Order: sequence, then structure tokens, then C-alpha cells
Amino acid sequence: MLNIMANRVAVFRREHFNAAHRLHNPSLSSEENTRLFGKCNLPNYHGHNYELIVKVTGEIDPKTGYVIDTKTLSDLVNEHIISKFDHRNLNLDLPEFKELNPTAENIVMVIFNILRPLLSEQLSLQLRLYETPRNFVEYPAI
Amino acid sequence: MLNIMANRVAVFRREHFNAAHRLHNPSLSSEENTRLFGKCNLPNYHGHNYELIVKVTGEIDPKTGYVIDTKTLSDLVNEHIISKFDHRNLNLDLPEFKELNPTAENIVMVIFNILRPLLSEQLSLQLRLYETPRNFVEYPAI
Amino acid sequence: MLNIMANRVAVFRREHFNAAHRLHNPSLSSEENTRLFGKCNLPNYHGHNYELIVKVTGEIDPKTGYVIDTKTLSDLVNEHIISKFDHRNLNLDLPEFKELNPTAENIVMVIFNILRPLLSEQLSLQLRLYETPRNFVEYPAI
Amino acid sequence: MLNIMANRVAVFRREHFNAAHRLHNPSLSSEENTRLFGKCNLPNYHGHNYELIVKVTGEIDPKTGYVIDTKTLSDLVNEHIISKFDHRNLNLDLPEFKELNPTAENIVMVIFNILRPLLSEQLSLQLRLYETPRNFVEYPAI
Amino acid sequence: MLNIMANRVAVFRREHFNAAHRLHNPSLSSEENTRLFGKCNLPNYHGHNYELIVKVTGEIDPKTGYVIDTKTLSDLVNEHIISKFDHRNLNLDLPEFKELNPTAENIVMVIFNILRPLLSEQLSLQLRLYETPRNFVEYPAI
Amino acid sequence: MLNIMANRVAVFRREHFNAAHRLHNPSLSSEENTRLFGKCNLPNYHGHNYELIVKVTGEIDPKTGYVIDTKTLSDLVNEHIISKFDHRNLNLDLPEFKELNPTAENIVMVIFNILRPLLSEQLSLQLRLYETPRNFVEYPAI
Repeated sequence: MLNIMANRVAVFRREHFNAAHRLHNPSLSSEENTRLFGKCNLPNYHGHNYELIVKVTGEIDPKTGYVIDTKTLSDLVNEHIISKFDHRNLNLDLPEFKELNPTAENIVMVIFNILRPLLSEQLSLQLRLYETPRNFVEYPAI
Repeated sequence: MLNIMANRVAVFRREHFNAAHRLHNPSLSSEENTRLFGKCNLPNYHGHNYELIVKVTGEIDPKTGYVIDTKTLSDLVNEHIISKFDHRNLNLDLPEFKELNPTAENIVMVIFNILRPLLSEQLSLQLRLYETPRNFVEYPAI
Repeated sequence: MLNIMANRVAVFRREHFNAAHRLHNPSLSSEENTRLFGKCNLPNYHGHNYELIVKVTGEIDPKTGYVIDTKTLSDLVNEHIISKFDHRNLNLDLPEFKELNPTAENIVMVIFNILRPLLSEQLSLQLRLYETPRNFVEYPAI
Repeated sequence: MLNIMANRVAVFRREHFNAAHRLHNPSLSSEENTRLFGKCNLPNYHGHNYELIVKVTGEIDPKTGYVIDTKTLSDLVNEHIISKFDHRNLNLDLPEFKELNPTAENIVMVIFNILRPLLSEQLSLQLRLYETPRNFVEYPAI
Repeated sequence: MLNIMANRVAVFRREHFNAAHRLHNPSLSSEENTRLFGKCNLPNYHGHNYELIVKVTGEIDPKTGYVIDTKTLSDLVNEHIISKFDHRNLNLDLPEFKELNPTAENIVMVIFNILRPLLSEQLSLQLRLYETPRNFVEYPAI
Repeated sequence: MLNIMANRVAVFRREHFNAAHRLHNPSLSSEENTRLFGKCNLPNYHGHNYELIVKVTGEIDPKTGYVIDTKTLSDLVNEHIISKFDHRNLNLDLPEFKELNPTAENIVMVIFNILRPLLSEQLSLQLRLYETPRNFVEYPAI
């Protein structure tokens, strides 16, 4: 049974940022980090071209024909996410990952928690984050 | 909690059409249209390579192994959508947009309303429409 | 109304295999097979670069920051699916399709039935299978 | 025999613009235009998401490690091409196409003639222009 | 030193076909075939979604603004290549590969030899053939 | 005039690696590095999913139908490039970039100088390296 949100349309906007990171849980030993994360734990970092797809769902405004102007949405994501994440080292430069391992799962939840309060409560938000074209995550899961 | 449709499989078929349009609400002033839609409101139109993904969900027919033959689905979409939208000016050539602003949100709903009655009631329909690789919409939203 | 799985994240891993097949229902006459499947029923087989996207949904393990390690997931899919399907003739080489027509719908269900018991019950599984970039299926349908 | 340009590296930058056009040779009759261009000649225009790949070839500057800074190249293309072509009607808005049929071949030559004088003579320039993912052109041809 | 073909533009058209094949040199022993081609030599065939990009280079016709109408080019490729290769088994169904191993290299040369005589001598022809997104060939090499 | 290499076919293999880097010329002042490289010079590195396309050109071996076995080519690139570059920090981990700024131009030349001696002199080598889908380089330039 499909849960259709009657008269609701989802709008997607794709953005990207390039960042360095390493997978590392500071509360574990070095050996345990190596065992869990392999080459992703190498000490000098590696990096990715992250692709972020922001999905905003709501009713169409009859005046504009928009659920949300994708330019408005793009500006919001650029101001609050891309400007902070792009060309940065996630482990070193972002306070959110001082204690939190920057896996794709954790990154997408951090981004969600930044963006969610910036949108009207009448709009639903879901994010997809590509770490590579073959590894990606979605939050919240449907 | 996942709403699985037991024994139901979704089949997707991707089609495309190239069209001109401009964003314009004829009930608003010229200044208001410029303010709302910026360069998308420029008077001589611009255009897109629209990509349409049609998702049809249902049970597998044990005789064919198909939910729906993608050739049948492609023929249906070509006859009722592509032949009318491709190489057209959405504002000028399609009666559906004489009063309705051809945003991606409105286009996807117009296409849905054409296709929905053409499919068996036992099949669910959802559409995704790409205006560009970075801006796209989905209806109905899940 | 969106069915959010609170605190659950979906992890996706993309794999591929190249296989030959033909669409053929052995319980039907040759004429009926030709009528139903056209050139897809030609006797000497054709083939595809199948792309398989495996979606696993669950809660983040606070120790690793993973729902599931994509390397673990990739190894599982390679051991149980890719090693059996890649560079094979689905009709001739795979016992699952001795009686079952290898449509995309049936292939995705066969793969699901192999993978589902290999994952913890606390993880949800959904598969998307591309037969071509324009024809693809998803199971279970949401 | 390969014509290698010793120590020369090619740098590519991808940009895009969305425009409306119709294929029409104003010096021919309406019937002849219909015969030659079919639905591409329909009077109210259609449109495309054009993708432009700019290839600049030269020696690496030992100070920067660049042949050309892709940011500089992107700014140049945006100032002189994208700002003029994006969200425009090529036939009506661009003086270059008042008499010239805006086929992909003619568009790529017009863009080349704008960009070529803006680059140092020690740099080679080649352009690829995608009208759709399946139809594209390159100038000058190698 | 760049060999520019003055006033010449390259036009590309992308087509595709789905086919089965196996790599096998009938003049070699079974052991030697296994050693050389591994799983690509498995007896019951596998298959691919082949993508073919046809590049035709020439001068722009001032009447049409075309080097060649991509519709004409597409029709030519469909009539002479796609209709013969699509949904076929290259080893069994195509006389060209009765003695010739259907590697991507040999397939692209076979296609070139079919298409070359069908084009005017004033047009240059080059082909790119994708066997998978990661393995592809080009002929003639530049 | 096209420089065809008679009977020569180009074979391409696509590989990828994920690495961290920053653009920095150690012989220049910090201010000059900031002025030249902007956010690409930020001290804690950023990263990319690099895509490397290796093009090898030669005559077809009549025994195998190959110019070069793409598996052999892939193994060579993985052993000599991917194993050294993947999940590494180019500035810190690779001796080649201790003094050399890891721009895409310099990286592609470093990779070329590693691979060129490993291939037969009868084979030509050209590389394309994508830093992002919109910024890429080719060496040697044709």
C-alpha cells in the first residue's frame, strides 16, 4: 500500500562539495581503528567529491507553481552546508566531527540536523549523500 | 517502518523530450513575474532536455514475468506524452499551460493526470521529471 | 504522510554483472513466446550490463558510525550474487531460471531471496536492478 | 603516428546553459524548412540543456602547476558565453543567429569565435557542445 | 602541433545495442582459450549493453548548417548496424564473427567496415564502442 | 587532415582512486599561495574521487583479438598507481609531490611517467584524469 501524500510534490536539488576525511573513532585503540576501517583509517586523510541531493516535499504554491524555488533551496544549502564543508577536512575543520566519526551515515545526519530547522514545518526533508558513485546513503530512510 | 507492498515490483522506464518554456503567471504583473522568476521569466523562452522516469508498480504476471511490458509502457508514454511535448513550446503549444505556469512541479502533475487513467487501477503510478541533472521533481511524493 | 524510520539510515552499494539471457516461458508455444517477447525471445540469447543497487536500512552502530560496512556488503553481494551471475547465461547456467523467465522483475526477486536470509533481521533490504539505463526495476516496491 | 605536443597538457572545463531555439534558414521557403528540419523547425521553438566542454592546451606553468586555472577559465566562459546564451532564445536574442541557423555545428563555431581571441596565442582551444546526451559536436575537428 | 582540419566540424551520434557473445578463437585449443580469455570464454555466452558513438567529420553545408543531419546518421546506423547486432548473439548470428573473435577491438573494426562505404568520401568516420562503462575502444586511433 | 594510425585501435580502461591533497607551492610565500590557489590551498587538505582513463593504442594481435587485455591493463594500473594513490594524501604520502604541486596537470604527468616504461614501445599511451566531473586533464595532448 503506497503512502501517497495527496497533492504533495517532491523537489530535488543536487549540490556538491569536495572534502578530506579519515574514518577514526577516537575512543578506540589504534589497532581497533585499523581493524574496523582499513585504508579508510590511514593517518594523512583521503577525500571525496561528495554529491548531496536535497529532497523537499510539500504542496505547490498556486501563485508560483513551486513547492520551493530551487534557487532559494540552492542558496540555503550553499550558505549553510557547502560553504562550511567544501574544500575542508571534515575531521579537523568541522566541530561536528571532533568526536564523531565522519562516515557517510554520520555526515548525512549532521547535514540533516543543520538544514531541518531552516525549512518550514510544512515541508518534509530527506537527503541523499554520495561518497562515491557506488557508495551512498539516505536519511531519513523511508 | 517500511510499507512493503508484498509481491509487488516497481518497473521504471526512462523517456525524454526537448521543449521550450518560460516561467510566467499571467495573473500577476510583469514586475512581480520578474521578481519571482528572474531569468526564467525572460520573454523569448529558454528550454530543457526533460528526462521523464515513469514508475509502475504491481504484481508480476506469472505468464509473462512482467508487471508491465516496458515496450507497452514506452509506447503509451510516447503516444500520449512525448508526441505532444517534444519539440514544443509548453506555454504556447499545450492547452494545459495556457493558464498554468509550466514549472517542473506543474508539468509533472499534468503528465500524471494524462497517464493515470490509461493504466489499470491495480497498477500504481509515480513520475520523476528532470528539468536539468540538478533540478528534478517527483509526484506523487512518498 | 511520510513513514520515517526514526534514526534509521539507508546505505546503498552499487555492483554490476554482465550476463546473457533470453525471455522465454517454456510452458508456452513458440508462437506465443514470439508474440509476447518479440526480439527478446530470439533463440541465441542477447545480453546486458546489469547494474545492481543494494539498499540496506538500519540504525547506526555508534562504535563504527556504520549501518553496515559497504565493504562487508560488497563482499556479500560478490560472493553470493556476482560470482554466480557474472559472465553467465541466466537461462542455461542458473538453476533458478530453469523454469522461470529471466525478466528483470524475476531476476530482482531471485536476488532478493538469496540476499535476504544473509542479513540481520534488524536490517531492511531493497534492491534496484538496471537492465539498461532506461529499463529498471525495484523490489520490494515502496 | 601520434602528433604529441611535447610537454603540453590539455585542461577541460565543463559548463552548461539552457536555451530555446528552432532550426530555420530564413533564405529558404517554409516548405523547404519543414522538409529539411522536420519537428526541429516547429514555429514556437523548443530547447535544450546545452553542455559545453572547453579544452585548452598548453605548457604547464612551473610556478602554479597549471596550464590555466580552471577558475579563470570558468569565469571567462561564464562572462562571455553563459551570461549571453543561458535562458535565452538563440534565434531571437542573439545577433549572431539573426541570419545563421542555430544548429549545434553553427553554435559551436560562434562560441569558438568569441572565445579564441580571449586566450593567449600559446594556448590551443577546442570545444565540444552537447545538444543532448546523444547528439554532440566538436570544433575544430582533429 | 595540432592538426586542425580548417572549417571542419565533428558530429557525434550515440546509439546502443544489447548482444550476447563469448571470447573464443576457434583455431586454438580449449585450454588455450580458457587461459587467454578466462570467464569471457565460458561456453554459454554472456552479454553487454554496447554503446556506439559514431563521429562524422566534414564541412558545414551552408544551406542546412549541418555537417550531416543526425537523424540521417541515426537512420543509417540503425538500418545497417543496430538492426543486425541488437538482441543477437555475435558469435552465432553474425557471419562476420564465424571465424573472428568478437573482442571490442574486432567488433569496432567490423562496424567501421560496414559504415565507411555508406558515407561520402568527403566525410571522415571514427567510432567509439563501449563494452562496459569502464572498457571501451576507438577506431581508427588518432 | 586526420592522422589515422592505420590498423591501430585505441583501448581504454577506467579506474579510480580517492585521495586528499592541497594546492601549495612550497617555494612561494603563504600569501602568494593563498592568492594563487584560494580555497584549494586551505591547510588541512580537501579531496577528490579521481577518475583515471588509460588509453593504449596499438595493432590488434590476431591470436587474441586484443590490442591489450583490459584485465592486464587494469592489473598494471592497480599495481603501480591505484595501490599507491588510493586513500592517500598526495602531498604527504607520495614522494613525487614533496616538491611538486599536485595539480591535475602535474598528477597526470607523474602517472604517465610511471606507466610509460611499463608498456611495450609499440603501444602508445595517453591519460585522462578527472578531478571532478567538470574539471579534467589529458596528457599527452593531441
